[in-house]
Amino acid sequence: MAGAPEASELQLKIAELGRRARGAALRLNALDSSARKAALEQMAAALEAATAQIQAANQRDVEAARAEGLSSAMLDRLELTPARIAAMIAGVRQVAALPDPVGETINERERPNGLRIRKVRVPLGVIAIIYESRPNVTADAAALCVKTGNAVILRGGKEATFSNRAIAEALRHGLAASGVPADAVQLVQEADREAVRELVRLDEYVDVVIPRGGEGLIRAVAEMATVPLLKHYKGVCHVFVDKSADPNMALEICLNAKCQRPGVCNAMETLLVHKAIAETFLPSLAQAMGERGVELRVDQAARQWIPQAHAATDCDWGAEYLDLILAVRVVDSVEEAIAHINTYGSRHTDAIVARDEQALNRFVTDVDSGVVVQNASTRFNDGGEFGMGAEMGISTDKLHARGPVGPEELTTYKYVVTGSGQVRG
Amino acid sequence: MAGAPEASELQLKIAELGRRARGAALRLNALDSSARKAALEQMAAALEAATAQIQAANQRDVEAARAEGLSSAMLDRLELTPARIAAMIAGVRQVAALPDPVGETINERERPNGLRIRKVRVPLGVIAIIYESRPNVTADAAALCVKTGNAVILRGGKEATFSNRAIAEALRHGLAASGVPADAVQLVQEADREAVRELVRLDEYVDVVIPRGGEGLIRAVAEMATVPLLKHYKGVCHVFVDKSADPNMALEICLNAKCQRPGVCNAMETLLVHKAIAETFLPSLAQAMGERGVELRVDQAARQWIPQAHAATDCDWGAEYLDLILAVRVVDSVEEAIAHINTYGSRHTDAIVARDEQALNRFVTDVDSGVVVQNASTRFNDGGEFGMGAEMGISTDKLHARGPVGPEELTTYKYVVTGSGQVRG
Repeated sequence: MAGAPEASELQLKIAELGRRARGAALRLNALDSSARKAALEQMAAALEAATAQIQAANQRDVEAARAEGLSSAMLDRLELTPARIAAMIAGVRQVAALPDPVGETINERERPNGLRIRKVRVPLGVIAIIYESRPNVTADAAALCVKTGNAVILRGGKEATFSNRAIAEALRHGLAASGVPADAVQLVQEADREAVRELVRLDEYVDVVIPRGGEGLIRAVAEMATVPLLKHYKGVCHVFVDKSADPNMALEICLNAKCQRPGVCNAMETLLVHKAIAETFLPSLAQAMGERGVELRVDQAARQWIPQAHAATDCDWGAEYLDLILAVRVVDSVEEAIAHINTYGSRHTDAIVARDEQALNRFVTDVDSGVVVQNASTRFNDGGEFGMGAEMGISTDKLHARGPVGPEELTTYKYVVTGSGQVRG
Repeated sequence: MAGAPEASELQLKIAELGRRARGAALRLNALDSSARKAALEQMAAALEAATAQIQAANQRDVEAARAEGLSSAMLDRLELTPARIAAMIAGVRQVAALPDPVGETINERERPNGLRIRKVRVPLGVIAIIYESRPNVTADAAALCVKTGNAVILRGGKEATFSNRAIAEALRHGLAASGVPADAVQLVQEADREAVRELVRLDEYVDVVIPRGGEGLIRAVAEMATVPLLKHYKGVCHVFVDKSADPNMALEICLNAKCQRPGVCNAMETLLVHKAIAETFLPSLAQAMGERGVELRVDQAARQWIPQAHAATDCDWGAEYLDLILAVRVVDSVEEAIAHINTYGSRHTDAIVARDEQALNRFVTDVDSGVVVQNASTRFNDGGEFGMGAEMGISTDKLHARGPVGPEELTTYKYVVTGSGQVRG
């Protein structure tokens, strides 16, 4: 029998990154809350001191991206203006000031044999984050991880290489200045895509991988990973306007859910309208959406009331446009709306507008999504709006976290069992 | 561009299984607690009515296994005696009587804009379970899933094919009799290993996969899966006897942790002893373990006190013997014990025996395991012992569940956001 294949240089490098992260995580776990808070203050100060270097590094990235012909939207996401760097630093300080979830006793029980079983909140350990373009994520993610006692391994987009390096270097200086191992924040330096493959299979050292970006990136990571993921593939969010809805409220909610920021995952992509309200609601909706440049793609029933709209095809149900496009369908009942959402939705955020209590209850019980909303915009599925202070992303999985992933969702628990010599009979 | 490759017949069959399970899960989710409890009572009654068929089916499996030369231990695990069938039925009734975690409001907050955000416990959805040999798992797992509002897809071992079919058929009769879709419990009929591959990649329909069995099975599933897993690879559990320990208590705990049931995942595999207590503790330990037929594999320091024992090699640290074998190492401090456990352990269950408060606290804070124990046996990491009523397995992952996976761990949450027309500014 041949021996195990020899590890490549890349494999050894990524494993070493993991080993260091795990060491740092064990050290972070032993620190108290105030020590981690002080480290975050130092990280912010170090970013401040490195502002000029960060901007220069970012200019290199922006020039390279311009030379490669990146779209102006991409360039805008990549660029770090002085105001954006200041906002990034303020963000680290805001995270420092958040309440610390680590150490909380979640519950406690005593067993008949006298064993005391305490469920205590602890850091996840080592978190790897794989993300695209916006370099401020480097600081945001590192701050949230250190806050919650986790070590982080960052893998940013190729286009932001120099920016991410400059930011990570500053953060590591800040950590070292506060006596926390700099390896609590590490950046994967290897541009090779194989590096991601190695990272997401590093079960021995990495506890969780959070991929953030387009559906393609996330599916590729899910395909390769053996380490557990926190993720959402996409946001196909629905608003259902029931026959009992206040039409004005419904219109405001639809306009906000579709138009306030159409490119994000909690924007509405499909509108479902009860047939009994379609005649009055759809024409005013069409006019208001038209004024805002929204293209409607509507089913046959809806076309009766908005004949000028495009006909929807089967591809429109379940489409994530991330754009000023809206699919519209008329349904016969709240049950039909629920069935449509459970078939075509992405379990992200779905809303009902109604006054009827039975319809409101039925909807939130039966729609199988992480966040279900009654009489408000889908845009509220957000860590800040939920009062979490900050978020690392959104999960549409069922395990561990659904909806916004904030500080508490970056923790797990352990059981501490205390006895006085008990053995099992 | 070529079209997507055509789905195989097997792929279509497994996808259909998933589609049916999801339909059943949505129906289960809409049922109240008493309806699910009634379904469990009917499942128990149907098992009772089918006892003769189940025993006959089990005889076919046992005869085939005997003809294939399975070990007597394996045959024992496979066999369903009348007493075991009765215990299996009693188990279903016990699960029916457990408190129902579904529907609980975990927490609730009101935001400054008036939005009310409620975090509500809900079923996971569709759970796939992949397991080996013991056919009673078919009934245990189905009962726990239906109890918590989940649909289950069962994939048992080849050697228990006929037993599992007979049990699943009875359970489905019970469900149908109570008006719950029989597809809440389905068995993968295809013996092909490819069926498992398809099942664990069915993200559209399956929410969680729980693999139960040997490390090889679990690693193979982790390698293939894109659906999230709840799992533990192995149990390399430690007991650390501090210098401050009561030696009699330490001895009782060590004997129980090693000998009470050596083949299970929460049995002790490595004993760490503080050097200051080694001289008095190790000889008495060696004698007591010797009387119980335990083979000791000890490091050089320990050999001073137990010269007759085998010398441990590097392979002994981190070994999961599941047998009457124990690795023993002398350490200089609680810190060295913690470092050993965090290096060689499997994050399953680790215990300290000590009277010194500082050592006790340090150990449970710094050992990175799901269950940490002070002055009691490692054998208590168990759903029943924790008061959960029943368990589906043990998790050593960090996400979602650590330690025993009981009814509550088979649930997740959703956010119900209630507004009065709020939109995002």
